[in-house]
Amino acid sequence: MEMRTIDPKTVATRDLHQFLLGSVAPRPIAFASTIDEEGRLNIAPYSFFNAFSSNPPILVFSSNRRVTNNTTKDTLHNIQKTKEVVINVVNYNIVRQMAIASVEYPTDVNEFEKAGLTAIPSEVVKPMRIKESPAQMECIVDEIITLGDQGGAGHLIICKVVRMHVAENVIDEKNRIDPHQMDLMGRMGRAYYVRCSGSNVFPIVQPVTQIAIGFDALPQNIRNSRILTANNLAQLAGLLEMPTKEASQALTQNESLASLLKMPDRSLLLHNYAKQVLDLEGDPEKAMKVLMLE
Amino acid sequence: MEMRTIDPKTVATRDLHQFLLGSVAPRPIAFASTIDEEGRLNIAPYSFFNAFSSNPPILVFSSNRRVTNNTTKDTLHNIQKTKEVVINVVNYNIVRQMAIASVEYPTDVNEFEKAGLTAIPSEVVKPMRIKESPAQMECIVDEIITLGDQGGAGHLIICKVVRMHVAENVIDEKNRIDPHQMDLMGRMGRAYYVRCSGSNVFPIVQPVTQIAIGFDALPQNIRNSRILTANNLAQLAGLLEMPTKEASQALTQNESLASLLKMPDRSLLLHNYAKQVLDLEGDPEKAMKVLMLE
Repeated sequence: MEMRTIDPKTVATRDLHQFLLGSVAPRPIAFASTIDEEGRLNIAPYSFFNAFSSNPPILVFSSNRRVTNNTTKDTLHNIQKTKEVVINVVNYNIVRQMAIASVEYPTDVNEFEKAGLTAIPSEVVKPMRIKESPAQMECIVDEIITLGDQGGAGHLIICKVVRMHVAENVIDEKNRIDPHQMDLMGRMGRAYYVRCSGSNVFPIVQPVTQIAIGFDALPQNIRNSRILTANNLAQLAGLLEMPTKEASQALTQNESLASLLKMPDRSLLLHNYAKQVLDLEGDPEKAMKVLMLE
Repeated sequence: MEMRTIDPKTVATRDLHQFLLGSVAPRPIAFASTIDEEGRLNIAPYSFFNAFSSNPPILVFSSNRRVTNNTTKDTLHNIQKTKEVVINVVNYNIVRQMAIASVEYPTDVNEFEKAGLTAIPSEVVKPMRIKESPAQMECIVDEIITLGDQGGAGHLIICKVVRMHVAENVIDEKNRIDPHQMDLMGRMGRAYYVRCSGSNVFPIVQPVTQIAIGFDALPQNIRNSRILTANNLAQLAGLLEMPTKEASQALTQNESLASLLKMPDRSLLLHNYAKQVLDLEGDPEKAMKVLMLE
């Protein structure tokens, strides 16, 4: 893989900015609701945002200095004065309304009205929640850390969640959020967004407290496969132990496998068979047994 | 929308954790490479991660205390001693290898070998880069901020990018990263991931320095449409000015629109026509002109 090497000290800020945004993605979106000392409402989206701790529940987002004129934003001014914010999430249904709220309206313009969104009272803090958002997090701001004084410089706004509201219709019977019902949007580089539902969203299950065998335990004929991808090999490497030879041999009771073993190109056929077991059945233990027949 | 209200002080940490992870998503993944004082290599993935500033280029990730036994991780120990890390991104091709690296192997195990990944030297820092990752960011750690002392508590690891490497094959002719070639993975709640390429990734263009008319400028017949979605209305609200009546009337030279205007249910038909113009042509100015014919 040919790589382009970039020195942040010598590349144009604009180019570095886009290389970072295209690489550090997808980014969750904080649709931040604040209020000023005169009671004026403000909402604006920020994608330099994430959770960083669950106990205590800490969210961090950054309201950056504008690259164009090195000024700061209403969200930051309001938080500096009031130390409160409601962070609302952005799903597909409201993503274009969010885009309207990103327009740099003058301070006295209420973005709720501009974006056609509904302000509803919070329980603990003064800023309003966005009714149309499927998850709303009322926060007290613990600290603001300034990262620089040039255009593009961020401010880490460290928020403690004091109350959370989640739409009942995105919570499943196991008391967990269903990503497909939630239908969140993520921010990518340039003007790109990603919609997080449908077939692009899938689980990858790997126990972390039990010790997987790893790539170095895979037999050479498997590691050197011309059929299996790195992801396929990783599925096999994620097993907690190698199957026994007996368990592998027992598979030959399967007629199609038994006949396949008689073919001259049995190696190729076994690898293809194992790949199907991995990709379609998601059963690395069975796939490993198949490959051990080689 | 019926909401469930959660008080972080009274809900189980485990449940709060999952509500936060399901709401603050999709999260980018930092595949962090570190080295200890004895030269032993470590790689591990973290999704409490984001960019927070481009000038200076600052990335922040958190290595959290384990919820199970309140211990901390090798990545954190190594960074506390060496103040260096390489943050590699995770795309679809290596996501299952990343999952292997998330297994809690003993300190003396090299996760590069376990995950079948290739360690290559960095230019500025001691930790190795992951060759298979399409973007690798060499970082000096500026500061570590502790967020708590209980299980689940995070540490903000504030990293300055001192060198960046991006695969040439993900950079397009405009010198920008193509998200489809990059094919990044994002982290969702529970075991879910999102693949960020294909039709789920699309641009949303909204100028932010020019002032959009906003929802409050939309005529009532449009705002109350039973056909147009909130996203459709937001596309119209994103226009910089209303078209003139003359420009709207000029559309009646289009024969199908002219005949549509003679129908008894012209209002419904016009809204459906406008919706198609928005959804398929992505042309809010034309859609607005159509709706003004009502």
